[in-house]
Amino acid sequence: MISERLKRVLSLLSRLPGVGEKTAQRYALYLLTTDEAVSRELGAEIASLRDHLAPCVRCGNIADVEEDKKTAECAICRDSKRDAALLCVVARVQDLLAIERAGTMRGRYFVLGRLLSPLEGVGPDELPIPKLIARIREGAVREVIVATPPSVDGEATALLLKQELRSLGLTLTRIASGVPHGGDLEFADPITMGRALAGRQNL
Amino acid sequence: MISERLKRVLSLLSRLPGVGEKTAQRYALYLLTTDEAVSRELGAEIASLRDHLAPCVRCGNIADVEEDKKTAECAICRDSKRDAALLCVVARVQDLLAIERAGTMRGRYFVLGRLLSPLEGVGPDELPIPKLIARIREGAVREVIVATPPSVDGEATALLLKQELRSLGLTLTRIASGVPHGGDLEFADPITMGRALAGRQNL
Repeated sequence: MISERLKRVLSLLSRLPGVGEKTAQRYALYLLTTDEAVSRELGAEIASLRDHLAPCVRCGNIADVEEDKKTAECAICRDSKRDAALLCVVARVQDLLAIERAGTMRGRYFVLGRLLSPLEGVGPDELPIPKLIARIREGAVREVIVATPPSVDGEATALLLKQELRSLGLTLTRIASGVPHGGDLEFADPITMGRALAGRQNL
Repeated sequence: MISERLKRVLSLLSRLPGVGEKTAQRYALYLLTTDEAVSRELGAEIASLRDHLAPCVRCGNIADVEEDKKTAECAICRDSKRDAALLCVVARVQDLLAIERAGTMRGRYFVLGRLLSPLEGVGPDELPIPKLIARIREGAVREVIVATPPSVDGEATALLLKQELRSLGLTLTRIASGVPHGGDLEFADPITMGRALAGRQNL
């Protein structure tokens, strides 16, 4: 009793990460009942997304595709005021954006795209380590900040990067893990609390 | 440092109900990194949604727009095997779909589109009561099932419908409210438990 066209829209919307049947219905019904311009604009923008945006060739951040349709270099890599000696390695573009929101990273980034994950069958060969080493060499990098998440896979990836990069004569650092700002010590899990203690600094 | 094009996509994605900045980022990054055909198809489908789908002229359900671009009548209203004497009034198309999933409604529907809500300034005049009365008269309806949700607004709407429809000489019914299937009595809220008791039936 449900229209074939509606089924098709729902199945395409369900491809979005975390979107199930009910959320897809909610989106479709919103798009069908709101101002018509919203669905036309959103549709056109999504359809042409890949013509205008692509991963930055240098770091993997999302970048505008240049006129010649061959290169995409992001605003951070093009910004000459950024410190070329400092490179921050992250797992995902979302993590890069979160670090940018802090507003204190003066250097540039390298997006791995994935983490080492033995459970999901992602081994060291599936990480872009050669590309990262080439990026470090080409850019006169002196410090690499490993900003993978403080999870099992994130820590495993940080250890792998330590092994792979230590012969390059760089300073290798890892972001701090501890009780978050505004966090209540009472509700901190034991691992976080252990890290907060182990990572203590002079007052 | 974030591309203007990406900002535009994120702001359009954030128009979807319940989508904030982080979810919009997640969708955009998925569309930028998955198979390119997915973003092209989803975009085209959303852009042309309003050309192909529209509210059914009889009941408000989502319907395929006919060739002549003037009428849209849904599969349920077109189905001659449905009982014309039975009409189920719902608030939203999602509720209609939920009732259809039960598979036991033999009649047709009428979608109000909204509920009476004094707190949000939605009064009786903003509900399509005259259209509902016209639909009842035209269709030889003998029973109206009021399937608005068992919430404050849903109950207020049910009471309004009772007042407006009681002079039409119909059987007016309301869906049952009680402990849901698989629900644990221990966790039922007092209002639900009160309704389950008040609505008890002979074993």
